[in-house]
Parts: sequence; structure tokens; C-alpha cells
Amino acid sequence: MASYEKYQQLDRADPLADFRTRFTVPDGKIYLDGNSLGVLPKAAPDMLDRTLRQEWGADLIASWSKNGWFELPATVGDRIAPLIGAGPGEVLACDSTSVNLFKLAAAALRFQNKKGKTVLLTERNNFPTDSYILMGMGDWFSGCETVSASRSELAARITDQTALLSLTHCDYKTGEMHDMAALTRTAQARGAMVLWDLSHSAGALPVDLNGCDADLAVGCGYKYLNGGPGAPAYLFVAKRWQKALQSPLPGWMGHADPLDFGPDYRPAPGIMRFSCGTPGILGLRALEAGVLTFDGVDLKRVREKSMALGDLFLTLVKDRIGFDRLKPACPLNAEMRGSQVSFQHQDAGHIIKRLIAEGVVGDFRPPDVIRFGLTPLYVRYQDIFRAVQVLAKIIDKG
Amino acid sequence: MASYEKYQQLDRADPLADFRTRFTVPDGKIYLDGNSLGVLPKAAPDMLDRTLRQEWGADLIASWSKNGWFELPATVGDRIAPLIGAGPGEVLACDSTSVNLFKLAAAALRFQNKKGKTVLLTERNNFPTDSYILMGMGDWFSGCETVSASRSELAARITDQTALLSLTHCDYKTGEMHDMAALTRTAQARGAMVLWDLSHSAGALPVDLNGCDADLAVGCGYKYLNGGPGAPAYLFVAKRWQKALQSPLPGWMGHADPLDFGPDYRPAPGIMRFSCGTPGILGLRALEAGVLTFDGVDLKRVREKSMALGDLFLTLVKDRIGFDRLKPACPLNAEMRGSQVSFQHQDAGHIIKRLIAEGVVGDFRPPDVIRFGLTPLYVRYQDIFRAVQVLAKIIDKG
Repeated sequence: MASYEKYQQLDRADPLADFRTRFTVPDGKIYLDGNSLGVLPKAAPDMLDRTLRQEWGADLIASWSKNGWFELPATVGDRIAPLIGAGPGEVLACDSTSVNLFKLAAAALRFQNKKGKTVLLTERNNFPTDSYILMGMGDWFSGCETVSASRSELAARITDQTALLSLTHCDYKTGEMHDMAALTRTAQARGAMVLWDLSHSAGALPVDLNGCDADLAVGCGYKYLNGGPGAPAYLFVAKRWQKALQSPLPGWMGHADPLDFGPDYRPAPGIMRFSCGTPGILGLRALEAGVLTFDGVDLKRVREKSMALGDLFLTLVKDRIGFDRLKPACPLNAEMRGSQVSFQHQDAGHIIKRLIAEGVVGDFRPPDVIRFGLTPLYVRYQDIFRAVQVLAKIIDKG
Repeated sequence: MASYEKYQQLDRADPLADFRTRFTVPDGKIYLDGNSLGVLPKAAPDMLDRTLRQEWGADLIASWSKNGWFELPATVGDRIAPLIGAGPGEVLACDSTSVNLFKLAAAALRFQNKKGKTVLLTERNNFPTDSYILMGMGDWFSGCETVSASRSELAARITDQTALLSLTHCDYKTGEMHDMAALTRTAQARGAMVLWDLSHSAGALPVDLNGCDADLAVGCGYKYLNGGPGAPAYLFVAKRWQKALQSPLPGWMGHADPLDFGPDYRPAPGIMRFSCGTPGILGLRALEAGVLTFDGVDLKRVREKSMALGDLFLTLVKDRIGFDRLKPACPLNAEMRGSQVSFQHQDAGHIIKRLIAEGVVGDFRPPDVIRFGLTPLYVRYQDIFRAVQVLAKIIDKG
């Protein structure tokens, strides 16, 4: 009990503590799965209700201009931009991560093909949907050969043939982070472009795309950005690339003048050319509410707390359970680790079921990983303490 | 005034009259733009509020199974199916119309390439986003040459080289309908596949995909289906094609076992293989509310009323304005016409602005078309009478 009070004390001293009031954190649960689905921002239901009753219900098609529906993918993109080190007009909220990855990878490959570069290099343990999309591209596009390499070999596998290196910044299972700046430099030195998936990074730690001179990125709206189930994803195209690249999905919203309904496609001059069909307004409004939860948040503080929460989780597991009984699957060094901890255990699936039954929500990633997302705006030190208590009890019972 | 009462009488006798109570029809407006954005179903705000507060807010990731989120694209697809003459397991609600068109066209082309067929045939005046996507494919896929022909030449342009014929069933501007059964037969007789865009048909008139032995179709969720702004679209793949075709966008939701997170892509056995990224749950719930407005609706009655509303509109324009002053841009024969009327006028843009200012909402399609959507579940005969009165007044003033 003395320990519990100690962590409550830490929570009271936490400079981010007040931000928790922006969320509906479910009663009686310790929710450590914000890297799968972020919790509901308190502002979201009213924002959606207004969008439904006023914008859709009363204003109807006038909303496309009156309520900013046309620009909403760019408006929400501009709100995401500072979270990932992008500038205004470089980010668009649209489609799914998988569709956006396809668009940008195909666009980059086509550009690079002109220089005789044909290899799309990715990591063997990339996030599965990224792997599926990227591995598939070789089947569809002449001038694309997808090659996957292990993490440690990646840098060495970049050659003059490499058209595109596409990686997930923070590994979904282990939380291990790539050195974005170094890999981008290495790839670009050989004339390759780089496409980062920020799904497991953005909102949980500072990402500095322009600081790394990054080319392209995509990411997910429903994890750390709290955009709701299946929220629109986003894409980033550095200003210097926007004119040279073309989307393989030239839908009407990417047209320079969509309402002209002209017979020929003329891509929009800026980021909008990577748009495709009509934007899903309800999903975008919920994502807007999610991104607004970061208003006034200092991401350096978020990172500090995230590292502290992760270190605390690992220390408590080491002390109370022992790494011999629950083996870390994430880096022990917080600098190398995204905003999650994970562990290997042969009964991982069973342990997660028991945990959830006791109100501690983490998740299972086959075959043997249990994973806990750390979302510093609403997870507290006392939550970590209690989660490990429950985990220890379950492991003790065997 | 005697006339107005006559049309009120018709509304009282209308067997579909009660369905209007399922919608929030905006006060003081005559809304004839349901083919651009259907009005708000009364059930939608509560359904969304429940999805937000209970499913997302309280149940969180458990909702993927507990609240049927995983199956929602197929569940909503199955609800759309009877509106378009499809069977269970043949329709999926997902992505945008443009993305779905790309997926199915690419899948069909790839299959047909094996037989040496390379031509993608479409109509010169196809709905622009369809044209942009289809014209673009020739640039991206070897083994695809996109050819566009005028409406009258289409049948004659189908050859043994034709891999795919892709058409919009009901023209967005003129409302003229293709003979789906005849064109499908003609194309299939030469070994071509056919991909129909039902965006301007589904929900406004009976479509009989399986009755026409159709291959593939896509359509929009936010027009006559009342699914809300930028609602998810849908795709149809006939059962007999589901095993042979593969999506060029093999995202994780199209995997046979998405939660296995395995390294290799194995497409799902049925319609789910045409899914891509995580489904947008909020948009799907609103679309579900929209499709539920058709519960118990007899589409034959919808078609009868739609034709009657269109005939009335044309007759009133002829009598009060004259076709010399406002030239019909739609077929006069209701059998040939979708659920809209349209007219050509050199001041079309100006006329629409004036109409909207007076509460009659139609839309302008460049360069010179004014268009009025007829949505029989909530548009009344008296609305048509009053709309033409306002229109006549505007034209008279010049």
C-alpha cells in the first residue's frame, strides 16, 4: 500500500496529469492498449453530434464549403503535422494506412524507375499489413522487385538499385525504434527514397520528419492519435516531392479542380493530389477531436513520461516476477523503445485473457508476445503499479 | 392553389408517404439533391452516439468482436445486397468508390491478361472520378490500355481484346441509363468482364446484378443510400469470381486470418479478400443507418414514384416554362431515365444559385446543366410543383 501511495504521489506531480480529463477513460479498467485503439476524447461525441445534426442534417451539401468539408483532409492533416515534424501543406488525412502506403510507394517507385532503380526494400518483420502491401507491389508493377531483409542487415542491403526503403519507425511487437535520421541519410546517399510508417510512433513520441529530411510517411489515426475505430489515416509528402510524384489512384478529390468535372485529370498542385475519393467526413471529425487532445501538449514531456512509465513497468516486472519468468521482448533501454513494453511468454494468449478479465487491457500478438501500450496523456504511474500487481498474481498462479 | 392541393392529394395517396418520417428533411427547403448527398436518417445520430459512447468509449477494443466491428463491412454489404440484386457474401462496404473501382478493375485486368486481353473500355462521358481512375490505369499497369468511346459506339467497340468494360449505370448528368443486361451479355459473349458503377442508381431504382449475370460492381454510400458525407462505398464481386480475382491492395483486413499477423499474405476465401485496411467504423454505422431506411421498402414502388415525379417535373416545366426556354438534358421517356431530371441552360450556374437562395436545392454541373435528384422516400409531389413554380419565376425574370 505504501508503494501504491508512492505512485499516486508521482501522478500528482505529473505535469501531464490534467490532460487525462480530456478523455473518457473507462471505469474499472486499466487500459494499456492505446496503441491498438486510443480511448474516446470527451469532445468527440458532441463534435460528431453537431456534424450529424447541423452540418449533415440541416446544412447538407452547403457544408462542403460552409463547414469546410472540402478542406477537412488538409485541415486535419495540418493539425497532425506538428506532431510529426511536418510543415503546413505536407500532411493529408485520408483513406487507410494501407491505401496510403500503396499510393506513396507506387508514386516513389514510378519516379525512381526513370533512374533505373527498381528495388523496394523493407524489413522482414515489418507491420504485417505494410508487408502485404509492399510484397504485393512486385506482382503488380513492372519495375518493382520487393526485397525484405532482417533489421540488422537493412543498412547494408541499400544499394544503387534501391528505389525505396519502406519501414515502420517503431516495431509493433517489440517497440524497438529505427534510427530515422541515420537510415534516411544512408538511403538518400545511394539515391533511394524512404517511406516511414509512423503508426506506432505519432502522438506518443516526438517525430521529426523534416528534421530528418524525410521524403514520405504514412500513419494511423486510431492509435495514439485517438481518432476512433478505423479512423482515416494520414500521409506525408515533403514539399520538395509534391510536384514530381503522382498518385496511382487519381480520384476526383486529387484533381486540381474537382468541381469542374472535366474529362481529363489534372493533379492538384500540392498535397491534395494524393487524395482520392470523397473524404469520410464523420471519421475525419472524430480524428480532428482526437488530434485536438494534443492542444498545448509538449511532446518532450510526453516522451519523458512514456519512458518513465516503461522503465517503471520493466523494473516492477523484474522485481516482482523476474525476467526469467517473463522475458522482455522490448528494448530495456528507453531511448531505443517506443511507447510500449512487451514480453515473451509461452502462455501469452492465456495471460492476456486473464488480465483482461481482471480489468487490465493489454494485447496478445502471436505467437507468444504480450504487449502494453503506454499513452502518457491518460495512463498513470498508479495504473502501471496495479497492472504489474495483477500480472504478477496471474503468473504466480501459473 | 387548386393545383397545389391536387399534388397534396397525390402525396396523401402515396403508398411511400410514411417513409418520409424516417428522415430529417430540413425545414423550409425543397431538397432535390439526394443524388449528391442523401438527407440525415432520423436514426443516425442515436446510432452514432451509441457507437461513440458505448462501443468506442466503454467497450473499446473488445468491440471488434463484441459489437461486430470486424464483420461490419460484410454486414452492411449484406444489407445493401438486396437493393442491387446481389446475394449474401457478394457485397462489401469499404473504402471509397474510386478505390473500389481501382481494386476491381485491376483485379479483372490481371485475370484477363492471362488470356491476352488488354483493353479496358469505358465511356467518354463516364462519371469523372471513374474516368480519371480508369484512364490512369493504363499508365500504371503493363497489360492495360484504356479506350474510351461515346455512348452510341460502346457495343460496337467491344472486341476479343476487351478485358473489361467499365460503365456508370446511370449517367450523373443526364440520368440516362445503360441497358445493363444487354451490355453485360454483349461484353461477356466476347469474353470481356463488366464492372458497373451503381452510384447514381442504387436505392433509387431496382438494380438486378445477378439477374443480369453481372460480374463486378461498385457504388457510393452517400447518395440515394443516405449514408452520410463521404460514407464508405461498396463493391460487388459475383460469387463465381471471388476465388479467381485478387486485390492489388492486399491489406490486412483482406487476409484469411488477419489476427494471425503472419508474414505471408493469404487472401480470405470470400468477399473479404477485397477489403484492405481497418474499416472506418463511424462511417459504416452511419451507412448502416442509411441503408436501414430501406427496411420494408418495395423498390418497385420507389421506381414507380420516381418515374412519376420525373414525369411531373418535365410536364410542369414544359407547360409553365417551355422546353424552348429550358431544354431537357435527360431522357423524356421515364423508362430510360434514372431518378433525376436535368436541363441545359446557358445561365445554369446562376439559376441554381437563385434556386438555392429561394430554398430549392438542386445542383449545377458544368458547363450548363442544372440537375434535380428525385428521392422517392422523402420527396413529395407537392415539392415538385413548388420547385417548378420557383424555377419558372427565376426563368421569367431572366
